[in-house]
Amino acid sequence: MVEEGAQRLSRNPLGTPLTSGNTRLKETRKLSRRSERSERRLFLADGPKAVEGALGAVSDSGVSCVVEVFATPAATEQYAALAAAAPVWTLVDERALASLSDSVSPAGVVALCRFVDRPFAHLLDPAPRLVAICADVRDPGNAGTVIRSADAAGADAVVMAGSSVDAYNPKTVRASVGSLFRLPLAVEPDPATAVRAAQAAGLVVLAADGAGDVDLFEAGDLLTQPTAWLFGNEAWGLPDELAALADHRLAIPIHGRAESLNLSTAAALCLYASATAHRRS
Amino acid sequence: MVEEGAQRLSRNPLGTPLTSGNTRLKETRKLSRRSERSERRLFLADGPKAVEGALGAVSDSGVSCVVEVFATPAATEQYAALAAAAPVWTLVDERALASLSDSVSPAGVVALCRFVDRPFAHLLDPAPRLVAICADVRDPGNAGTVIRSADAAGADAVVMAGSSVDAYNPKTVRASVGSLFRLPLAVEPDPATAVRAAQAAGLVVLAADGAGDVDLFEAGDLLTQPTAWLFGNEAWGLPDELAALADHRLAIPIHGRAESLNLSTAAALCLYASATAHRRS
Repeated sequence: MVEEGAQRLSRNPLGTPLTSGNTRLKETRKLSRRSERSERRLFLADGPKAVEGALGAVSDSGVSCVVEVFATPAATEQYAALAAAAPVWTLVDERALASLSDSVSPAGVVALCRFVDRPFAHLLDPAPRLVAICADVRDPGNAGTVIRSADAAGADAVVMAGSSVDAYNPKTVRASVGSLFRLPLAVEPDPATAVRAAQAAGLVVLAADGAGDVDLFEAGDLLTQPTAWLFGNEAWGLPDELAALADHRLAIPIHGRAESLNLSTAAALCLYASATAHRRS
Repeated sequence: MVEEGAQRLSRNPLGTPLTSGNTRLKETRKLSRRSERSERRLFLADGPKAVEGALGAVSDSGVSCVVEVFATPAATEQYAALAAAAPVWTLVDERALASLSDSVSPAGVVALCRFVDRPFAHLLDPAPRLVAICADVRDPGNAGTVIRSADAAGADAVVMAGSSVDAYNPKTVRASVGSLFRLPLAVEPDPATAVRAAQAAGLVVLAADGAGDVDLFEAGDLLTQPTAWLFGNEAWGLPDELAALADHRLAIPIHGRAESLNLSTAAALCLYASATAHRRS
């Protein structure tokens, strides 16, 4: 399905933007549903940052992540560099573009992308230094922010495990600010399987657990080893039987009167604590 | 306007829930606008966590923060402890409650609250150990998450400065998960004034600045002093002239390929770095 640059704009060579009634756009709009995304292993990346990230990425099947970019005529002028890099660049009118975007004020450019996740086993060979496993993380913004923070902290991979939100949810894609396309991603239905796979690859599994018995900032040498962090649900944290699989349970100290931290905030503190310890050791 | 417990339910003593056409509810709904909130120094706290926080707080004028709680009959049964603690508890029907809430699935309970911010000068005497100054932070979720993280890190106050989002925006109140009511808050139109006031009170002002010349995790003794952190806008960071007022500019190292961190994530890393250094020194 990837076409050469020479065929750019081939879907509407006369420059007439497609309207929202177009059959192909109707099919594309269905990707707002998770079931449709999962079945076709396709999703939409909305806005210039995401499209730029997608254009630099390869899909799980080793080909270009981007199938096609939809853009308004105005966005085509504004984002000429993206248009030059896209395998296919299709003009659509404002209304059709808005129908593909879940943004309140669409930026005028949306990429149709192939899934980028790979089996976790592939990401464990060679063994990574730092991995984040999200177990049942439900808020799409949190999931995207974890991916962004993991990328910033220099992690090697993120695993969306269990009943976690779809990594290809539009809000997750947006919150990752392109990191979804840069950081290796795995999707693993069973969090326990992900934990055991990480351990088998020689990683220490650290559970971020408010009830943990080790203070994250007093964890010392625990943090210097190759690590997989295990993060739980926003509301109820990690189930006991899953936390029990971890090698250690670490808590972020709450010095004030807050009951807890935001999940993605907690993940960033843990990942940066590891990254800093790795660099010092 | 605060009434005694004996007068609870006095607005509808027969237990007939108010409907959305009720004049007082119409006036209350106007608080969805920032201008209306600012003028009346009143805002709405939505959901049981926020209402619980509000019921434990005092307003800027030293009286109970909560003027009145609006609740559906179902929520009145479910949150009996809140009802017992509220100065006034008014039954409203589902539709009327939904009209007061900006939540997609309202929890059935909304508190009408007095503003809680105090002049920054009051929060500097005696001098605090740790303060967060938000300059032009625009995303309401980010602002609320900064307040929550500052509370968790044991900060003494948060200042919403410059053109920052309204601290009383419903999304900010929700993201703070009650910390808005626990952590002293100031609102200061001019960020430079806030910076100079902190310095005059003996605090070191540290700017969180991606272009900073000191690595946050290598800052050593810089972090052990009483500190005001200065955080800028999500998109463009801190204006140069404001960052120049800071005593030091610290950067969070980006080890991977992310361009930057989410603003509230960055703030949490900075605040916890200070909190940890304070406890070790």
